[in-house]
Amino acid sequence: MAEHSVTVENTLQTLLTDKKYSTIRDILVTMNPADIAAVFAGIEQEKLPLLFRLLPKELAAESFVEMESEEQEALIKGISDKELRQVMDELYVDDAVDIVEEMPANVVQRILAQADPEMRKEINEILQYPENSAGSVMTTEYVKLSPGMTVGDAILRIRRTGVDKETIYTCYVLENRLLVGTVSVKSLLLAPSDLQTIDSIMETNLITVTTHTDQEEVAQMMSKYNLLAIPVVDGDNRMVGIVTFDDAMDVIEEETTEDMEIMAGMTPSDKTYLKSSPFELFLHRIPWLALLMISATFTGLIISHFEEKLAAMVCLTAFIPMLMDTGGNSGSQSSVTVIRALSLGELEFADLGRVIWKEIRTALICGLVLGALCIGKVLLVDKLLLNTDGVTLTVALTVGLTLSLTVLCAKLVGCTLPMLAKKLGFDPAVMASPFITTIVDALSLLVYFGLATTLLRL
Amino acid sequence: MAEHSVTVENTLQTLLTDKKYSTIRDILVTMNPADIAAVFAGIEQEKLPLLFRLLPKELAAESFVEMESEEQEALIKGISDKELRQVMDELYVDDAVDIVEEMPANVVQRILAQADPEMRKEINEILQYPENSAGSVMTTEYVKLSPGMTVGDAILRIRRTGVDKETIYTCYVLENRLLVGTVSVKSLLLAPSDLQTIDSIMETNLITVTTHTDQEEVAQMMSKYNLLAIPVVDGDNRMVGIVTFDDAMDVIEEETTEDMEIMAGMTPSDKTYLKSSPFELFLHRIPWLALLMISATFTGLIISHFEEKLAAMVCLTAFIPMLMDTGGNSGSQSSVTVIRALSLGELEFADLGRVIWKEIRTALICGLVLGALCIGKVLLVDKLLLNTDGVTLTVALTVGLTLSLTVLCAKLVGCTLPMLAKKLGFDPAVMASPFITTIVDALSLLVYFGLATTLLRL
Repeated sequence: MAEHSVTVENTLQTLLTDKKYSTIRDILVTMNPADIAAVFAGIEQEKLPLLFRLLPKELAAESFVEMESEEQEALIKGISDKELRQVMDELYVDDAVDIVEEMPANVVQRILAQADPEMRKEINEILQYPENSAGSVMTTEYVKLSPGMTVGDAILRIRRTGVDKETIYTCYVLENRLLVGTVSVKSLLLAPSDLQTIDSIMETNLITVTTHTDQEEVAQMMSKYNLLAIPVVDGDNRMVGIVTFDDAMDVIEEETTEDMEIMAGMTPSDKTYLKSSPFELFLHRIPWLALLMISATFTGLIISHFEEKLAAMVCLTAFIPMLMDTGGNSGSQSSVTVIRALSLGELEFADLGRVIWKEIRTALICGLVLGALCIGKVLLVDKLLLNTDGVTLTVALTVGLTLSLTVLCAKLVGCTLPMLAKKLGFDPAVMASPFITTIVDALSLLVYFGLATTLLRL
Repeated sequence: MAEHSVTVENTLQTLLTDKKYSTIRDILVTMNPADIAAVFAGIEQEKLPLLFRLLPKELAAESFVEMESEEQEALIKGISDKELRQVMDELYVDDAVDIVEEMPANVVQRILAQADPEMRKEINEILQYPENSAGSVMTTEYVKLSPGMTVGDAILRIRRTGVDKETIYTCYVLENRLLVGTVSVKSLLLAPSDLQTIDSIMETNLITVTTHTDQEEVAQMMSKYNLLAIPVVDGDNRMVGIVTFDDAMDVIEEETTEDMEIMAGMTPSDKTYLKSSPFELFLHRIPWLALLMISATFTGLIISHFEEKLAAMVCLTAFIPMLMDTGGNSGSQSSVTVIRALSLGELEFADLGRVIWKEIRTALICGLVLGALCIGKVLLVDKLLLNTDGVTLTVALTVGLTLSLTVLCAKLVGCTLPMLAKKLGFDPAVMASPFITTIVDALSLLVYFGLATTLLRL
């Protein structure tokens, strides 16, 4: 895909230099909005308005929606008020809101001035909903029907008003602004008679969200119930808008990226990787790195505390990285599994007991196998093969036993913390590898030195 | 959601015991197929056929599709051939294939025997495509139109044949089995005249995939181009089926879970967490744990090699966990960012140079800040506050400098390995935290002991 775009980009660059505008237009009209947007991202910003004017009105608006905010801003600044108005006329309200949210104040003013009064009102309404809520991603343009209409009336209404709607495939049946049912275009078209009334064929078993429902939950419900669009109602159950499947897919992608970033100890970023400057990347990465580095002081303290004992049996030091890493890996396996299950709605806090019991049993099997493997490895490799100073059967047992106990602690910490975080209203993704590792490091060292003191009589 | 299901479940359990079947039916018909499936998962398997028979035919089939394979298998075994045939008649081909793929051979035979001959043929065709390919997730039921038809004809055709199609909203225009265009029901309904021909309104700028395209790529294309359905063509460009948006959403969810599992050092699992037994969880977790544990031998060797020097300056040991963890965290930040960008198609191998250059600059800022912080912390906390034996300004400098260099190595390794893995045809997700950590551990220790030997003249 990207390789294809690069080639088209080069061709267009050459054609631009040669001022072959009609050829450029011929190429652009064969392309999809998403691909045009990708090509625009690679062209110098001052040439964008020129290229943009070559596009037919509708394709221009559709491509505009797909662009990154940098190109959008450059375009808005480079085109006339009249051209901007034409773009605004073609936009759906939710797309207009997305654009407005990313622009600096002076550009927002110009956009709103060019939107027609009704759209301006709707944009301002949607802007008032909290970020990441259903209200902030919905569109207020949908097909409204009344329960008493006939199928024929309904199809006529769609034909008359559908052109401005983002989706016509699910229509909403309202009575005094309350949602009483939904009708799909499929059921309208397949209805045995045009004279049937809407209330006789509408679906009354409704799945709705409120304006304040989190966008991730909205997307999950749409995926669970296979919905093309989901109605959004206000606190009084009045219908205010719909969220469409394409926005749900974007939300899922966005939230997944955010989860992964948080799980890897970064603060989430809106910008794509290649668009982020090193300094921006630094700002997203340094908080957790610094915090975790400082908190590793604690692990250092444990080692310092046992320093004399370590000095008496230096060979024990060599096993510290292995114990810490295996502990960290075991813990992150459990935490990532639980975090994902929580975010898919497969788990909730009430399952804590079952989760802990499952992890204990899993940890026992993992711990026993790893412990045995480890004892075997220490005896075979470190003692027999490498003949490392000080490695005895008791040392091997100490290391193996520590490993088993570390795996148990790690899996318990790993499964419990994300669930507690969720219960306390934090993002469970914070409780992934880096955080778990820091805790498990300390635990594994305490177990190690505790066992070593007892078993090796240090 | 889950809490709601649990309550309904309990009510149904009581009603089942009391044999209040008509009340049960009244409750079930108000529910959505996905919720009915969730309730069925909590009922004893021998009671499932009884409950299932209470459902109206269409709702029964729709709920059946939403169930986990265990409940499906129990149901198929518990209902008569005639009942099974009724379910099969209501199923879309792609859903039937999903079910067949999960069942043991004897159940598959019973299912195929009850499918009508055409469906049996289609199921068998789809079963031949490789797992996770577009062919394996597509459905062969879609609305076909001819270029010469009028809009009126097309609407009539949809009304006559649409009932069996999973989606009617995008219709496919074929000429000699080749796909020449697509028409949305929206454009059919909004067409100015019923007498216009299909070829005058169809979209000819086609986005297609082949039967062998990976399902993840299919889902990404649908998300990128906001498609409700995407046509699947064979090697000779003949249309063979479509993939619909609900399957694309499932694919995205499945692939994301798989990525996260692999990134946390687990082999991916098809089963949900609560359905997996501890032994199954163990089997998915032990391979990487064991492999990484064994490979930590290498880190141990480095420490053993410098054992005498460590014994001469035991305070150095206390900083090992901090250096290793910060290195691991730095590396996993870079690797996760790159892995995600690769899986979203934002990066490709050709960008390797840009990525490395960006990571070097980011690592330099992170490294300098962390190194300085670390030197300050060692001097303030370890030297002044705790008065730890042997900690001097030179020790602080050694630790700080090691940290800076470790961050640089970690970020380079973290960004490079996933891209190399992708280039070599492996899953980049394998190159996440656990793997990177093991390599970075070794590197950081080598740097540490190297610097310590030089700066502290050990």
